[in-house]
Amino acid sequence: MHRTKVTIASDALDANTTIASANRSDFDREEVRVVNLMSSPGAGKTTLLERVLGGDALGELRAGVLEGDVQGSFDADRLALLHIPVTQLNTGNGFGGECHLDANMVRSALPSLPLADIDLLLVENVGNLVCPAEFRIGEDARAMVASVTEGVEKPLKYPLMFRACELVVINKIDLLPHLDLDVDRLVANVGQVNPEARCLLVSAKTGEGIDQFADWLAEVAGRVPTAA
Amino acid sequence: MHRTKVTIASDALDANTTIASANRSDFDREEVRVVNLMSSPGAGKTTLLERVLGGDALGELRAGVLEGDVQGSFDADRLALLHIPVTQLNTGNGFGGECHLDANMVRSALPSLPLADIDLLLVENVGNLVCPAEFRIGEDARAMVASVTEGVEKPLKYPLMFRACELVVINKIDLLPHLDLDVDRLVANVGQVNPEARCLLVSAKTGEGIDQFADWLAEVAGRVPTAA
Repeated sequence: MHRTKVTIASDALDANTTIASANRSDFDREEVRVVNLMSSPGAGKTTLLERVLGGDALGELRAGVLEGDVQGSFDADRLALLHIPVTQLNTGNGFGGECHLDANMVRSALPSLPLADIDLLLVENVGNLVCPAEFRIGEDARAMVASVTEGVEKPLKYPLMFRACELVVINKIDLLPHLDLDVDRLVANVGQVNPEARCLLVSAKTGEGIDQFADWLAEVAGRVPTAA
Repeated sequence: MHRTKVTIASDALDANTTIASANRSDFDREEVRVVNLMSSPGAGKTTLLERVLGGDALGELRAGVLEGDVQGSFDADRLALLHIPVTQLNTGNGFGGECHLDANMVRSALPSLPLADIDLLLVENVGNLVCPAEFRIGEDARAMVASVTEGVEKPLKYPLMFRACELVVINKIDLLPHLDLDVDRLVANVGQVNPEARCLLVSAKTGEGIDQFADWLAEVAGRVPTAA
């Protein structure tokens, strides 16, 4: 049973890579840059997106969101209030309730995405620190949100996720005075598993650090030639 | 590709059910009751176990822990300090880095578990709100930890997990004064997806509510006839 499962996973990952490349070509053709945003459930991805998309932090950059959830549209409904294009993708709806987005699911959502009208697509993945890291979806960059309430050892326990990301947004720093958490140790643990990762200390609640997150997004999107 | 994946999942779940029954028979023969403890990463499962196993809350009840992680033994090392039997099970070690425990993994750990010396086995699952709910492991009861920092809508977004559990431990209530969270609404949302679930308000940090959690564990273990 074990060997069978591993073989299936390997085949699925190969197929995923092929479809991710096709997605990437489509995004490139439309001059859209894509960020895959991952985290544990409740780390604050949606609030972070509300903060960075709700104000002027991104300037002229036109952003859209692809919202991944097992079911429901709670986060998409919140983001739609910002009057930006938001598309809901449910893994429970024809995809067996998967715990992550894969390239095929994102491909199925492409016709619903207004690619011609945006420069940057933020894909909010299903809340999970394991499987989302294994499936590329055709993104340009990967970021994760790690809440300070989750403890300092998460990079060491879920290294694949922390290694997969170029950016680690350490969120909820407004709660630090109320936690027994050494945030320097958390940053050091990120560095131990991924020395290349950039860490940002952020409070999506108070807005602290949001400008730095916006700068990073603009940097990712800055590779897009200005639309003619 | 989609239909193939669903078929595989269905076969895997059937096989899992068969192996879970075999585990259950082995646990029953040894008169050990088993709790499957699940949550998001960082919700506080290990701290909760430290609290309830480290004091006198469980009285004469002899408990052991099976610690599930993708890799590493951070939590098992913490719990081993309590001088209780702790067995580490890594899904990254021969099980493809799975995001959950399944019955076959638990079966592989049975020879390492001192079943004759314990009355209650607490299985700390991999931190994940999706897949662990789909795989029975031969347990008598399922409990989950939901941290108040994760927000009120998690029961509605991950209903399968909340429906799978008899007990929902709402943890980190010491942080409530610092959060914009209506804990009554969280409890109501649990009730909406699982009217049968019992909710306990707990702070593993301060110890508040730990006795009620201990009582619930004793209730689960109370079905065990006293060993001759």
